Order: sequence, then C-alpha cells, then structure tokens
Amino acid sequence: MTTAPERPLSTPTRDEIFDAHRGGKLATGLTASLRDQRDLAIAYSPGVAEVSRAIAADAAVARTHTWADRLVAVVSDGTAVLGLGDIGPRAALPVMEGKSALFKTFAELDSIPLVLDTTDVDEIVETLVRLRPSFGAVNLEDVAAPRCFELERRLVEALDCPVMHDDQHGTAIVLLAALRGACVVTDRDLGSLRVVVSGAGAAGVACARILLAAGVRDIVLLDSRGVVDAARGGEKAALAAITNPRGITGGIAEAMAGADVFVGLSGALLDESLLAAMSPGGMVFALSNPDPEVHPDVAARYASIVATGRSDFPNQINNVLAFPGVFRGALDAGARRITEAMKLAAADAIHAVARDELAADRIVPSPFDPRVATAVATAVAAAAERG
Amino acid sequence: MTTAPERPLSTPTRDEIFDAHRGGKLATGLTASLRDQRDLAIAYSPGVAEVSRAIAADAAVARTHTWADRLVAVVSDGTAVLGLGDIGPRAALPVMEGKSALFKTFAELDSIPLVLDTTDVDEIVETLVRLRPSFGAVNLEDVAAPRCFELERRLVEALDCPVMHDDQHGTAIVLLAALRGACVVTDRDLGSLRVVVSGAGAAGVACARILLAAGVRDIVLLDSRGVVDAARGGEKAALAAITNPRGITGGIAEAMAGADVFVGLSGALLDESLLAAMSPGGMVFALSNPDPEVHPDVAARYASIVATGRSDFPNQINNVLAFPGVFRGALDAGARRITEAMKLAAADAIHAVARDELAADRIVPSPFDPRVATAVATAVAAAAERG
Repeated sequence: MTTAPERPLSTPTRDEIFDAHRGGKLATGLTASLRDQRDLAIAYSPGVAEVSRAIAADAAVARTHTWADRLVAVVSDGTAVLGLGDIGPRAALPVMEGKSALFKTFAELDSIPLVLDTTDVDEIVETLVRLRPSFGAVNLEDVAAPRCFELERRLVEALDCPVMHDDQHGTAIVLLAALRGACVVTDRDLGSLRVVVSGAGAAGVACARILLAAGVRDIVLLDSRGVVDAARGGEKAALAAITNPRGITGGIAEAMAGADVFVGLSGALLDESLLAAMSPGGMVFALSNPDPEVHPDVAARYASIVATGRSDFPNQINNVLAFPGVFRGALDAGARRITEAMKLAAADAIHAVARDELAADRIVPSPFDPRVATAVATAVAAAAERG
Repeated sequence: MTTAPERPLSTPTRDEIFDAHRGGKLATGLTASLRDQRDLAIAYSPGVAEVSRAIAADAAVARTHTWADRLVAVVSDGTAVLGLGDIGPRAALPVMEGKSALFKTFAELDSIPLVLDTTDVDEIVETLVRLRPSFGAVNLEDVAAPRCFELERRLVEALDCPVMHDDQHGTAIVLLAALRGACVVTDRDLGSLRVVVSGAGAAGVACARILLAAGVRDIVLLDSRGVVDAARGGEKAALAAITNPRGITGGIAEAMAGADVFVGLSGALLDESLLAAMSPGGMVFALSNPDPEVHPDVAARYASIVATGRSDFPNQINNVLAFPGVFRGALDAGARRITEAMKLAAADAIHAVARDELAADRIVPSPFDPRVATAVATAVAAAAERG
C-alpha cells in the first residue's frame, strides 16, 4: 500500500462490480499449512487437546492461543445499508464482507460478517452474548436509528469486549480530525465555531457529541422537524440540553444564518441561498452518499473548505481512516471498552498524520495513507492503557 | 498434498503444539486485494450497493455473489470435546479452528468456528436460525449425547441448508467404508456379519444405523448397562427394535461370543478373553482415542483386520476422509439436506478410491490421499441431485 495514487478514477462498470463479487470477497485461511500427519497431530487431534486443556484450566490462554482475540465480528441486521435503507441481512452481506476486507487490508485484523435475521434489540444482544467466546470485538454496522443507539448501549453493557457502531463513531472521529485540519488551514479555533449539524440519525448525533467533547461550544442540530430545541421531548430532549446554546428555533434557514461550519448527514439538499447566509470563509462538510447535500463546486463559491464523503472529490471524509486503527488499538491493548477518550485520541492521531501536509484541499490524510492505521492504533491503545 | 508419506511420526512436543497455536490457527483473507481507491469503489462503497440492490431484488444472487454459500459454520457448545468432555466453548475453540483448517486444506471450503456459551437446545437452534444468512452449512461438533441427537434433528428441521453432526455421521461413513474394505480383503459379505458395537453415544448409534442401511443384518449394540435389548425403554427402545435380531441379553461377553466384527466407541477396555471368543478371522475396530479399547498388537493375535482411530497404526479410521468431501458435495449441489443416500454414497466413494490397493493393513485410503475429498464430493453431489 502506498500513499494515494492521484490517477483519475474511472467509474467502475456494473459488470466489473459483479465480477469482483462473484463467489464473495472473503476467504478463510490457515496461519500454517497442514502438510502431513504430523501437522495434523499438532493442529488437530491429539495435539490440540493440550491447548484445550490449558484453556479449560486458565481462560486467559484463549486470548493468546485462539484467533478469537484478534477477530472482529462485523454485525448487521441490514436495516440501514449504505443509502439503500432496510434491505435485510442477505442484501447487507456484501457490504459486511467489504467491511471485513477493509479490516484486513488496513489493520491486518481478521474479521467475519455476522448478518442477523432479526431486528429485535433483545434478540441481537442475546445472540451475540451466546456467541461471545467466538470473537474479540464487535463492529456494529448499518443498523437503523434510533434503534442503533439502544443496541450499541446494550451490547457495550452485555459484552466484555470492544463494541462500536461505526456509522456513528467512525464518521464522528474522521469528521473531528477533518475539522481540526480545517481549523489549522483557516487559522480558526474549535471553540469559536458556530456549527450546524443537519441530520440527527446515527452519524449526526455522534458527530455532535464528539465535537462537544473536543471543545466545540455552539452546535445547532437539525432533524426532519427542524432545529432540535428546548421544546423537544423524548430522546431529543437530551440532545437539546447539550446543543443550541443560543436558543435558536425554526429550521435550516435560522440555523445557517451566520454559521461557520455546515455538516450535512441527512441527504437533504442544501439551497445555495443558505450557503450565502453563512459567515464568510466557512466550512462545508456535505457528507451524504452518493449525493452530497450540495455539489462541492457550488459550495466552494461560498466556503473556504469543502469536504464530501466521495472519493472523486478532495477531502474525502471516509470512515476507513478510523475504524481499522480503532479496533486494532483496542484489541492490542486488551481493552474492554472503546471509550470517548479513545475516540478523541483516534481523531487526533488522524489529524496529526497529515499536519505537515495540510491544505484547503487536504484537511485529512488519504484513506490509503499507510501511516494512518498504525498511528490511530497506537494512539487508541495508549488511551486505553491510560484508562 | 501428496499421498501419505510413510515416514515415521515423532510425537509432537508440548512446546511445538503451543507454538503452533499461538495467535490461533485461522485467518481471514480477501479473494482479491484492495490496492487503491478504485478497488475500494468496487468492493465497498459505492460499487457494492449494486450487488446489495440485486440481492434485495432476488435473494438467489446472495448464493452466487457472497461467501455465505461456500461457508461452513463449525458449531460447538464444548460439551464433548475430543476425549476431554464438557470443557466449555472457550476451550473447544482450538479444536473448532482445527476443524475449519481441515475444511480448507482438504476441500477448499471456507469455514468459521462458532462456539456457543449455551448448552440449551432451543437457544442453540434459535441462535443459528438468526444467523442463517451468514453461512451455507453447519458442521455440528463435539456436542454431548444424547442432546446431540435432538439438536441435530431440530437444526435439520429449522435450517434450509446442510447440517451434519460429524461425530455421529463422519465416523459412521468412514467406518462403513473401512468395513467394506475389510470385507473385500477377507472375502466376506456385509450381510453375513455378526457385528458388536460397543458404545451407544453419538458415534455408536450413527455407526449402527449406517451399517443397517448398508445391509448389515446382525448388530448387537452395547451401552454402559450392557446389551441394548427389548426390555429397554425410552430412546433405547427404538434402537433395540432395529438391532439384536437374535435377542441376546446380558453384557459384552454374551455379545462377543461368535462375533465377526467388534466396533469399539466407548473407551471401555476390551479383555483379551473376549477377543478369543470371537469367530476366527474377525475384525476389530478399536476406535476410542487416544486409547483404543485394545492395543492393535494384541487384537492382531485374534483378528485378521485391526483398525484404530490413531495415526500411528495402520488402518486409521479418521473422519477427515469424510466430512470435507461431504460438505463440499452438498454445497456444490445446492443441497438443503445431507440425506442417508448422500452418506452411503460418501462411504462408497471412500472405499472405491482405495479398492485397487486394498490390503489387511490398508482397508481405507490415507487421510492425506488427495483423491478422496474430490471423489466423496462428486459422489455426494450426484446423490444429492438424484434426490
């Protein structure tokens, strides 16, 4: 793997995509081949009995002498797959295979997709508790909001291993890294920014929370009903309590007036007049895929920094910068939880990798920058060890 | 892989065994590497969405464009692991990793161990039903009898994919192949044999059933209470109804008088006087591991054919001759069940591979004979397609 090739990307054809998926994208393999009876006698009966007996006597041996402790289960119920929505576990499987392929490619972590034919939170938790001895960590993926919040919370409580819903926290970590980069380029300070987060789904809520934890003080969060304000009840009341310090009411127009940063995670198109209403020299993160909230060329007329989720424009906000290193670091450290401190450390590490190369069109490293996963893993492991 | 090397086997040391298990024996990998943004755009977002959409529209695409349909889940609750008994799922994992390694080595099948922290049949069935979209077949392993019988039956009912408890049927298939080989060598006929099966656990019951299906007419089955006879109730009544045609009562002494074949699957030591009571020129299958019911050198004084489960004596009855090809054939054929006909076909195929090389000390092919898995897979797939 080398630093991102700058060659232009041709769009893959449908045939190319289907050919690449034929038979699936994953395989299992052996760490050492079995060539003869003696290899068999070591890896299987009777030799393996020694290892099984040792684990029965001391469960810690399972950590060092099975694959479970370096194995990430990529778990989905298929209810919020990419931009496709609730397409079910079978249709979600190619995405989960892709995710497992990324774990291997970027962090040398083994990984298996587990797609579940249930959307019941109790049942998913129960299933993973029963399977707990089979893996070392859980990457939750493409589970619909708001159920994903409860599911992640319940899994973190029930399992004594790292659990992270990547759609929430992977996005949030990389957004924070990118915002730090943008602040360096534009000589701004996180604490001085007025930030609008459009979308209060999995990613929107996590982004708002990590930005607050990192020192952003003024976030206005929007959902389909408009600004999340003090009048809201239910789950949104808690979000209203920590955001919207100026007590704005109304919709996107009220939120965008004088804003420094727009973070789009809702797919709702952003009218050009709203960009014009932002503070001069602002930042636009139009992160919906495949269609950003506003075309980057349009956004660039009003903002000094423009980022999207797409690989065919500069400043791609891609979760792959975060999750491989986060899980690698957590597993390397033997962490039982992925804490807020570990997520903040991951964002700082991503930002630090590119600090000397920052530019308006390069606020985060390329997803193929080989330094990133190692830097993130090291920082996350160190944060885990600090407790 | 080549035909079994005949070099003498040195016993692996404890250090060698532990070194070989450090970090586990399995790994996941990619069928094609991800080198740049374009590969990412094919295997992951946005390209993968095309495949997900196609599966959502037609579930059959999941069969051809994910790995699930060539993936065997090796499932255990750790209640009857090798000769170690109920040591739990964590301690069972190295054995299941070994099993997955064998699937890969002998049949090029991908495979993941799923060890379950429950021994409740309902819960195991429920768990695998929820996970059904994740895999293509289930190899049950090291589940204690009699629970294994109900569990296998329930899984076969609940899952629309091949399910086989290898401790039962893998052993039975290879025993039948070996008995066919022994009959050729000794010019005997299956239908004329008096067979004693000592042990009515997972393997014993399956062996008795497959031998009956193959044409053996006189089987006396023994459990810890002695001959399974007409006086038995419960689950044993069904076995009594199909075995013991001469209405023998008593114990091992009564069963062994005049027997042609002894099949040991109980671990109970066999006294030399019982061997002397068998018919001249008999056959002894002392299959318990690591300690056969009788030492092969002792058995050879009385029997014309002697087989064990061990690799350090001739005629090793090793499940690896059966399960890789059985699952490979079932998956290749898209079979929903592993039927009795498929098991019989597997035994015949194993036997046929070695037919021209048969000898008293070579009644089955070597586990490393590269012809076996392919022959078994072909025969099993053909049997599946015959329905």
